[in-house]
Amino acid sequence: MTNPNNREAQSPHPMQTTNQPIVIYDTTLRDGAQTEGLSMSLEDKIRIAHKLDSLGVAFIEGGWPGANPKDGEFFQRLQAEPLVNAEVVAFCSTRRPGTKANEDPMLVPIVAAGTKWITLFGKSWDLHVTEGLRTSLDENLAMITDTIAYLRGRDRHVIYDAEHWFDGYKANPDYALQTLGAAIDAGAAWLVLCDTNGGTLPDEVAEITDAVIAHFGDRLTLSNLGNQPGRENQSNQVRLGIHTHNDAGVAVANALAAIKHGAMMVQGTINGYGERCGNANLCTVIPNLQLKMGYPCLAETQLQQLTDVSRQVSELVNLAPYEHAPFVGLSAFAHKGGIHVSAVKRNPKTYEHIEPETIGNRRRIVISEQSGLSNVLSKAETFGIKLDKNDATCRHILQQMKELEQNGYQFEAAEASFELLMRQAMGDRPKFFALSGFRVDSDSDPDGNVHVVAIIKVLVKGEEKLIASEGNGPISALDAALRKALVEFYPAIAQFHLTDYKVRILNSNDGTNAKTRVLIESSNGEERWTTLGVSSNIIAASYQALVEGLEYGLILAQAKEPIAAGLSQ
Amino acid sequence: MTNPNNREAQSPHPMQTTNQPIVIYDTTLRDGAQTEGLSMSLEDKIRIAHKLDSLGVAFIEGGWPGANPKDGEFFQRLQAEPLVNAEVVAFCSTRRPGTKANEDPMLVPIVAAGTKWITLFGKSWDLHVTEGLRTSLDENLAMITDTIAYLRGRDRHVIYDAEHWFDGYKANPDYALQTLGAAIDAGAAWLVLCDTNGGTLPDEVAEITDAVIAHFGDRLTLSNLGNQPGRENQSNQVRLGIHTHNDAGVAVANALAAIKHGAMMVQGTINGYGERCGNANLCTVIPNLQLKMGYPCLAETQLQQLTDVSRQVSELVNLAPYEHAPFVGLSAFAHKGGIHVSAVKRNPKTYEHIEPETIGNRRRIVISEQSGLSNVLSKAETFGIKLDKNDATCRHILQQMKELEQNGYQFEAAEASFELLMRQAMGDRPKFFALSGFRVDSDSDPDGNVHVVAIIKVLVKGEEKLIASEGNGPISALDAALRKALVEFYPAIAQFHLTDYKVRILNSNDGTNAKTRVLIESSNGEERWTTLGVSSNIIAASYQALVEGLEYGLILAQAKEPIAAGLSQ
Repeated sequence: MTNPNNREAQSPHPMQTTNQPIVIYDTTLRDGAQTEGLSMSLEDKIRIAHKLDSLGVAFIEGGWPGANPKDGEFFQRLQAEPLVNAEVVAFCSTRRPGTKANEDPMLVPIVAAGTKWITLFGKSWDLHVTEGLRTSLDENLAMITDTIAYLRGRDRHVIYDAEHWFDGYKANPDYALQTLGAAIDAGAAWLVLCDTNGGTLPDEVAEITDAVIAHFGDRLTLSNLGNQPGRENQSNQVRLGIHTHNDAGVAVANALAAIKHGAMMVQGTINGYGERCGNANLCTVIPNLQLKMGYPCLAETQLQQLTDVSRQVSELVNLAPYEHAPFVGLSAFAHKGGIHVSAVKRNPKTYEHIEPETIGNRRRIVISEQSGLSNVLSKAETFGIKLDKNDATCRHILQQMKELEQNGYQFEAAEASFELLMRQAMGDRPKFFALSGFRVDSDSDPDGNVHVVAIIKVLVKGEEKLIASEGNGPISALDAALRKALVEFYPAIAQFHLTDYKVRILNSNDGTNAKTRVLIESSNGEERWTTLGVSSNIIAASYQALVEGLEYGLILAQAKEPIAAGLSQ
Repeated sequence: MTNPNNREAQSPHPMQTTNQPIVIYDTTLRDGAQTEGLSMSLEDKIRIAHKLDSLGVAFIEGGWPGANPKDGEFFQRLQAEPLVNAEVVAFCSTRRPGTKANEDPMLVPIVAAGTKWITLFGKSWDLHVTEGLRTSLDENLAMITDTIAYLRGRDRHVIYDAEHWFDGYKANPDYALQTLGAAIDAGAAWLVLCDTNGGTLPDEVAEITDAVIAHFGDRLTLSNLGNQPGRENQSNQVRLGIHTHNDAGVAVANALAAIKHGAMMVQGTINGYGERCGNANLCTVIPNLQLKMGYPCLAETQLQQLTDVSRQVSELVNLAPYEHAPFVGLSAFAHKGGIHVSAVKRNPKTYEHIEPETIGNRRRIVISEQSGLSNVLSKAETFGIKLDKNDATCRHILQQMKELEQNGYQFEAAEASFELLMRQAMGDRPKFFALSGFRVDSDSDPDGNVHVVAIIKVLVKGEEKLIASEGNGPISALDAALRKALVEFYPAIAQFHLTDYKVRILNSNDGTNAKTRVLIESSNGEERWTTLGVSSNIIAASYQALVEGLEYGLILAQAKEPIAAGLSQ
């Protein structure tokens, strides 16, 4: 069988040690789906599973078959489009109290999902047995034994998630250890210590992990997994895993502590999605383990995909990426202060804890209110614009930028607009067309159907055009009108399309009178660029960003092929 | 002098131990200001300083006087509006290489700021001395000694921030320790170990903190601070502090590790603001120290302000609050899954690691796609609506909610709209008015000035009204038209105003054809409520949320005083 963590493929790494490889278990599709505000379609789940597979995680927890139609269908679909390396895992609880596993209808769809591996969660904390399940402590042990034996009898490998492990151990260590013992005896391959409520601190995790290892002695396997990471349970080896939540803000530190003390599997989610404050963020755990602690997890080329996977998953689940996320965030290697910028340009080690490229991120020099001249110069350099620091133009740009930022402009995320501003100051901004106003009428009938018409007037290459266009909304109508007016003069426009549209209300306390900042991302199929507009009128702000988006796209086209861009006149 | 941490005021706490009190040092106004996307006016800084003062932090780092006009003015302003308990601190670097402290103009505005305490940062890492400052290792030691002596000679107390401490110690422990020794000899009251690049892991922080304590022996004070928390340096006592960044996702765990190993001050920011991935989040560090580790930090009543302070600061700096933040986030005690909801209602300990009230947060039962009947019932209960779980209406509501959520509706943040939906299903939604369509025309002249007119037609109490109104933008024009039409029939409307307006683009990949979800928060001066609208047309979505906002406000008014609400007919 293939090795899901591709350890063979790893090239030597400066921190490579004799540490055991760690098995990465992703639960974005199940525990991550509990995030407030997150929703995934079946299609989203399939796409995320394939991305995780190519990233190189060992296990992908797909959902609880039978809990809702979507989770059941997911496993069906994956049989038609199987994963290349990763094992997909079905998730469920121990059987209900007072029945038998082979009589519990809950387990029927679990087995029917057809996965080789099943993750089963059971109660470790006496409080949850008596108050949650309202059954006896002995019956809970029987539920663990019976359910695992039932699944083992159907040739399934079992990962046992010991829910509320740390709270349970603190409340009643003897009983908590009995639940793990029951899981070992019944044939579980992994015991995963779960900090379900997320309130445990790293030193407690370390201590309690030590206590588990001491208690079970050689019934647990702590040796290097070699090329068979315990994913087949032929040899009756039982290993420890860790599953943490971030309610005390230390989910990552807790996971690292457990690994250091002997756990060999880490469960977590992409971007730390999960109920309440989320699960351990795999995008943080993996680089810490691999780059800082010397535990191999992914191949080097897979690790380089981490930033992309983080952003793609956040797009698929439709949550804005968290810009300040460690390692993979847009700001993770962004330098704003003038001193930092000049130092980091001399030697990146001075202000960067790792090389951003190792996890597929990149350094950014941020243009902002606090920018010094060195930031502007550095930005100009990346745009390929020649600017001298003793030049008055340079100070003029800085001045103008600061004034605009006072009025709500923010160029950090809109580099194309900033480049246009620089070109304007240098007299190097091409004039592709001139606009004279717009009009947008939105008309709603009593049933709520809205009809929108936009009209623009544009002067292009000596011709004045008055163009009307319809659209779903005022912005799409304006966008359609602009393209319609310009495409015959600039055929490159036919390739342009909008890829993202973001609205931010500034001083939102002012209600609908507040200023609006609009960011529009455009693409020509190869490159992407972002422009912005600011106005108290959302339509005017969007229009500004739309127009600059077209203009910037034409500059890119012109750089490639002056004629195609229509500048042959 | 007053005790900034108000330890005397603390009432007994279940976890109270003999642990030393920890001094809280806030740098939101200085290091936090480095956050990408964050900007603060002078007025914002003053307001935040007073909020931090009332929260009970010991030190508030206000900025670097002289670095920009805003920071200088801040210290002037605070002399006119002084803080009650906290000490405000000016921040600066050691003097420049090759000069004398009393000849370095950088230090003039620092002393002129008039604070009793000054935080001075200096280099610990040989790489930064030679590559960053481009000076000799000896000159760096002289810069530390000379600058501290200069400030001590002007009666200032000095907190020495050892920049890049952990990286410096790892690269050249002897030299790093010499820099701290120089700071002690020159009269610093605090040595703060800074993980400036944020790449250190908790076990390293613990080890290196131990090494510092072992090296300096009784030149450091580790005893309980009693009622004089070392803020005056009369006795030549020198104590350790910790300053961490979150680049490896473990800033909080690092701060806790240093405290456990002997540090007595923690530096951090509200909401973890700070460059790149941010600083240690005081909203996470403080409750962990006080509630879980037994180190007194704030009085109990001050700790209860923590959630409010977190949200108020995020409003002032105009960044959306991070909903999944530990302890203080909107989602931190939100329960979504059906099983969790029924268990947590029986015994909160089952799924909550602390009582949310201790830090001023509250439990929330979330209405969402995954909601079971128990969530709907629990929500109805908080609305004061009587609903029986065996009632067909209840299932109908659940069904309808799920369908709407498929179409982009999300009731989690729009409880007023959800209550209207429930009332509708139960035949208990008053019909205050009937609308028949709207029209909005936006007209821009060539200079970009936009003129907006909205027209609505409404049937209210048997009268048909056709009303036109102008506005800054299409939404404010519609809002004005609705009020104008209705206020004579429902005078309560005169008190209503919009307090927040949020736009979220769903499936933003579809560009301007994507669906838009609008959330509008309204207020009557006493209560606040949030409504939502969804449409591919941003104006239609906003209109829906506006109309529901008025409707819900009228229900509230009617409950108080049927006649004033205009329902006397």
